Amino acid sequence: MGRRHSGKGSVISEDSRPQTVRELGEFALIDRLNAGREQAAHVLLGPGDDAALVAAPDGRFVVSTDMLVEGRHFRLDWSSPVDIGRKAIAQNAADVVAMGARPTAFVVALGCPADTPVSLVEGIADGMWIEASRAGGSIAGGDLVRSEQLVVSVTAFGDLGGQPAITRSGAVAGDIVAVAGELGWSGAGLAVLTGDADRTDPGFTYALATHRVPQPPYAAVIDAFGTHTPTALTDVSDGLLADLGHLAAASNVAIDVHSAALTDPELTALAELLDADAAQWILAGGEDHAFAGTWSADVALPAGWRPIGVVAAGSGVTVDGAAPTAGTGWESFRGADATPTGDER
Amino acid sequence: MGRRHSGKGSVISEDSRPQTVRELGEFALIDRLNAGREQAAHVLLGPGDDAALVAAPDGRFVVSTDMLVEGRHFRLDWSSPVDIGRKAIAQNAADVVAMGARPTAFVVALGCPADTPVSLVEGIADGMWIEASRAGGSIAGGDLVRSEQLVVSVTAFGDLGGQPAITRSGAVAGDIVAVAGELGWSGAGLAVLTGDADRTDPGFTYALATHRVPQPPYAAVIDAFGTHTPTALTDVSDGLLADLGHLAAASNVAIDVHSAALTDPELTALAELLDADAAQWILAGGEDHAFAGTWSADVALPAGWRPIGVVAAGSGVTVDGAAPTAGTGWESFRGADATPTGDER
Repeated sequence: MGRRHSGKGSVISEDSRPQTVRELGEFALIDRLNAGREQAAHVLLGPGDDAALVAAPDGRFVVSTDMLVEGRHFRLDWSSPVDIGRKAIAQNAADVVAMGARPTAFVVALGCPADTPVSLVEGIADGMWIEASRAGGSIAGGDLVRSEQLVVSVTAFGDLGGQPAITRSGAVAGDIVAVAGELGWSGAGLAVLTGDADRTDPGFTYALATHRVPQPPYAAVIDAFGTHTPTALTDVSDGLLADLGHLAAASNVAIDVHSAALTDPELTALAELLDADAAQWILAGGEDHAFAGTWSADVALPAGWRPIGVVAAGSGVTVDGAAPTAGTGWESFRGADATPTGDER
Repeated sequence: MGRRHSGKGSVISEDSRPQTVRELGEFALIDRLNAGREQAAHVLLGPGDDAALVAAPDGRFVVSTDMLVEGRHFRLDWSSPVDIGRKAIAQNAADVVAMGARPTAFVVALGCPADTPVSLVEGIADGMWIEASRAGGSIAGGDLVRSEQLVVSVTAFGDLGGQPAITRSGAVAGDIVAVAGELGWSGAGLAVLTGDADRTDPGFTYALATHRVPQPPYAAVIDAFGTHTPTALTDVSDGLLADLGHLAAASNVAIDVHSAALTDPELTALAELLDADAAQWILAGGEDHAFAGTWSADVALPAGWRPIGVVAAGSGVTVDGAAPTAGTGWESFRGADATPTGDER
């Protein structure tokens, strides 16, 4: 597993089964996971002591934590270990960026059964390091325990660079609503994985890749800090309408989304192949890890952002002035919309 | 569950089963868990946005993360939800203090089955808030997801107050080794829980309480910062010999422990009742969440610390000059010493 990993991952025990974490042991596995890693500049002291030490030059730090559970947030038959590691870091880095901060470091706790192949854990760690580096940080520390089910818990840190945090609560009537990043493609990938379509069809490649490894446009947000600062900002993870709903509620405003600004001809073509509704994926698909923000109408939108609606007095989110018909997004424990794995455990 | 919690915990669904997290839903449960909580001074922005914001007046922060898994690190038939929450925070706070930092804040990710009673999650959260307050911080944010097994992942933060971090690597030959906090009583409690003894015997109360809720002597360490700073410091969680072994290895020194300084007549009496070896509990029991440090021999030990051995040139840990006969402590995935739950999943 882990394509760039066939060397380390090919350690085989005597009877030619893959080596398990029980066979290697916790401390040896931790040593192997940390070997040869280069910490980012903000990590002043990495793994190996009771705790890590991270720079917070701003005198404050932004922190977000998310837990990913096998069968619920990812499936090993759908995603490679590297994909899972990248996604776990990406969704946490996106939360940090959505507060107006630059990611600096991450800590990770991983639980897995004792018979888990060492190569699987190594693949997840490799994916985490790849995405942490892309976001601007590194893995400063972690914990490794035995559990019945594979569970990954990531905590991400960011630095505000002396600027105020950009919360969800600053939108005012008259602001423009804009998004950066892909919407609906993760939902399309999930539809391919849960449906009867031939997953190897090249027409599905982009949707599948987007579902497996979201690509939050960190730079589109970070480059806008200070010069084109939004009045409110959030990451789009529960689904566009759900996350705009959280933003509208926090800001005590209404938001109207213009469906024409959200159409995506390629996604529409894909939806027709699958007899699905592209608008549903775009408005409520979830796991996009795009960003949505609001700007004063007299401010030019920064690069990478496209207008999709307006802020008005009132409450709630409408589409073209009407109550949305699509589902309202992801919520744990409910069986409803957008269950990432399509099952109901 | 959670004795101080019978009010909120007694919500009953129509058919008089306890309300489950599926019935209440993620967002309503998060609202309930956060209702009425007062954040500590370092938490500048608590739950409710994409991420939290925590003060780091030192310009750096200490961070440690630990995952606790049901059946592996705690059992619901052995500990109350409040106990589990307290223990989860205590072991992370101890790691932060063991770096020379004062705890400031915590973030928590919790995974549980959808049929988990709401009152159980509330009890864990109550325990977390109790212990976070005792350690000097509060719960700044978190995540709540569905999983097959109850899993709690805590990340703890601390501030160094302008002082250097106290690592494991500063011990030098000639230093005194000292400990603060209880040793062996958590192991004794585990022996009661895994053995045939009558758990309701009042003679076991203290051992059981210590196993269920460790009491790291935060103040004994924090009060020593600056005036009686140790040369090296660690928390005792894997077992005294194992943790001193990590410290000795990091410092490139040898440590000799004086068994006479570690005898505990009450624990010896308890061990005789259970036909057990008190020295094994003290040297290798694990989960003590005490602290071990080293000081120059010409510095007075701060209050709350007792000398137990000496640092010398060389490597490894000895007891009264000889190789220890007791097990060497806790390691995940191995079946060996001190499996907290006594099973082998």
